Amino acid sequence: MGLIVQKFGGSSVANAERVMNVANIVTETYKAGNDVIVVVSAQGDTTDDLIEKAREINTHASKREMDMLLSAGEQISISLLAMAIEKIGCPVVSMLGWQAGFQTNSAYSSARIKTIKANRVKAAVDKHQIVVVAGFQGINKYDDITTLGRGGSDTSAVALAAALHADKCQIFTDVEGVFTADPRKVPGAKKLTEITYDEMLELATLGAQVLNNRSVEMGKKYNVEIEVLSSLKRVPGTIVKEVANMEKMLVRGVTKDTNVARISIIDLPDIPGIAFRIFGKLAAKNINVDIILQSVGREGSKDIAFTVSMDCAEDAINLLNEIAELQGKNIVCDTEIAKVSVVGAGMETHPGAAAMMFEALYEQNINIQMISTSEIKISVLIDKADADKAVLAIHNKFIPTES
Amino acid sequence: MGLIVQKFGGSSVANAERVMNVANIVTETYKAGNDVIVVVSAQGDTTDDLIEKAREINTHASKREMDMLLSAGEQISISLLAMAIEKIGCPVVSMLGWQAGFQTNSAYSSARIKTIKANRVKAAVDKHQIVVVAGFQGINKYDDITTLGRGGSDTSAVALAAALHADKCQIFTDVEGVFTADPRKVPGAKKLTEITYDEMLELATLGAQVLNNRSVEMGKKYNVEIEVLSSLKRVPGTIVKEVANMEKMLVRGVTKDTNVARISIIDLPDIPGIAFRIFGKLAAKNINVDIILQSVGREGSKDIAFTVSMDCAEDAINLLNEIAELQGKNIVCDTEIAKVSVVGAGMETHPGAAAMMFEALYEQNINIQMISTSEIKISVLIDKADADKAVLAIHNKFIPTES
Repeated sequence: MGLIVQKFGGSSVANAERVMNVANIVTETYKAGNDVIVVVSAQGDTTDDLIEKAREINTHASKREMDMLLSAGEQISISLLAMAIEKIGCPVVSMLGWQAGFQTNSAYSSARIKTIKANRVKAAVDKHQIVVVAGFQGINKYDDITTLGRGGSDTSAVALAAALHADKCQIFTDVEGVFTADPRKVPGAKKLTEITYDEMLELATLGAQVLNNRSVEMGKKYNVEIEVLSSLKRVPGTIVKEVANMEKMLVRGVTKDTNVARISIIDLPDIPGIAFRIFGKLAAKNINVDIILQSVGREGSKDIAFTVSMDCAEDAINLLNEIAELQGKNIVCDTEIAKVSVVGAGMETHPGAAAMMFEALYEQNINIQMISTSEIKISVLIDKADADKAVLAIHNKFIPTES
Repeated sequence: MGLIVQKFGGSSVANAERVMNVANIVTETYKAGNDVIVVVSAQGDTTDDLIEKAREINTHASKREMDMLLSAGEQISISLLAMAIEKIGCPVVSMLGWQAGFQTNSAYSSARIKTIKANRVKAAVDKHQIVVVAGFQGINKYDDITTLGRGGSDTSAVALAAALHADKCQIFTDVEGVFTADPRKVPGAKKLTEITYDEMLELATLGAQVLNNRSVEMGKKYNVEIEVLSSLKRVPGTIVKEVANMEKMLVRGVTKDTNVARISIIDLPDIPGIAFRIFGKLAAKNINVDIILQSVGREGSKDIAFTVSMDCAEDAINLLNEIAELQGKNIVCDTEIAKVSVVGAGMETHPGAAAMMFEALYEQNINIQMISTSEIKISVLIDKADADKAVLAIHNKFIPTES
């Protein structure tokens, strides 16, 4: 009993059969006595198909027009889902982002939600209508349509749950929840019952790809209980909340990220401000730098290495070449690497966690190129070819497979 | 020089190449010194594809949700066309129906435009931006999306031309203009340079399918000069206006309509009010009746026959069966018929026109089942099998092929 926001991604509504499946989940929740707001993404490959249509015409289309184009995708899926719910016989109304009151800034294609004027949604909920809301989209102050960027529907759902003080926000995906590692690669991977926002953030950043990061940040900020679960298999998922049941597990997950490039600058003059000039320039161009490592080089010089996501590597190198102090320096970019990480709030109080991780890698004869640690994670950079083997070995070390 | 509204139908924007073609037409008009507002329909088969998606889920979906679904079609086409115009390098902005200020009543799927709050379109035109507007759609007073029904984009274009006092409204289609008969069927068919609104209305009703009727009515009401022309072949089209150059031609066109059913009720009691009960009941259900013929039947009885469009026939018969006086009466429905008509303001002053038409049919040994006349048209009902032959014979009689 209460108000539940349910979010379904593109694969969950990919065809008529899947749409009916979602309608069944929604109406079962409704018939159990809850009010339900559903947030949906565009069907299956719709967004990619629309992007392809645009590319055939203009590869440099303005972002305003791209947002106009792409937001048609959710318009199709919300109306189809509403029709499916009508067929089951429950009262329902679909709403576009602007109708549901999503007001954003004007950063087309990656807009931020400024506020949700949810009075229309609330009025419908008060009449016990199921409300089907288009995720991923809103309008700016010019009444132009904006989109929140890929994965934005998760954010739409959590933001709506926060605005309406919903009891829960359920994110339905094609996996059963958050696992300690990718279950397709690591046979012993376990589904977590609960996880904290911070742990989830680390896992999301590291490539677990279950839940959009901004949605987790928003959930943490407004204390929205988020559940990640499968739309195809009806079993309990993973609950993301402020304080999670620790389950006596040292780590929450082992992840790998192969979409990473390491850029090294060798033999820099050891003068003040050089690091600021490098990373300030990258930040100004919105290039996120992950691990940074500075080491003492030969006499009076130093080496700096850092990682960026693969698709930013070229831009980053071009920017470095603009810096006067780096003229003539040896700048090396390596993309044959992977970042493997263990995440878990339990590690904070367990000084041996890093050692356990390094031991697992040593046993597999895997060389560590860089190391980075935070309170709840340890990441290492290794050869891309060793990544799957490393994840398996580390997982087996921290989370032994039950016999 | 001036303000021109250009409307392009679905086939004109069916793929990337066609969209670029439309962008070329629009920007040429713009570069010639005009301000241009473009109204577009959904691409090619998009609307049909969306209807099919809906049917797979719910064959009785609410009209509100159908309108939500279908209006996504123009959202895709306006953004793609705007991108094509951006590529050519002209300033452009796309607008959905609600952004362009189309306010309608709440008759979902066949809404009527109540007013156009065109201040946003006007502001863009004042800045000499090309404005690409989604045809076929608007919003009602609840901020819900409505559609104007099939062919509604023509109406959107003419209404916008009227609201902004545009100098001309050009309706681009896949034909070169309005012809005296279907040029695929009648080799001697001629393109008309000009035609009056009234003649165009008769032609449109009769199945010429070039221009939506409501748009012609609106053009007449607000005196908007409409030009029908081809988006593929750059030649002058047909201009629809209040007073047309008569070109010494007796008739404007010969058309056939095979989407017609004749319903006959035999041996009705000759009591007052029966015709009112029949046609009042049909009107209440929005079934348009075309030709009505009442004849004296056997002693003290009468026969009534009328035509409706084929898809209304079943509904009409069901309604007739609800009328007490018709219980047990013989109600016959014939769909193997065609309505063939000649249209032309010149006929008013030419008493021999009907005789010429009947002579042409007699020469082909075609039997006439029903006759209906108005000031500017004569229609006959004949066997469907004879329709093409009849059109050709009548056309040759009135508009002899040049040698």
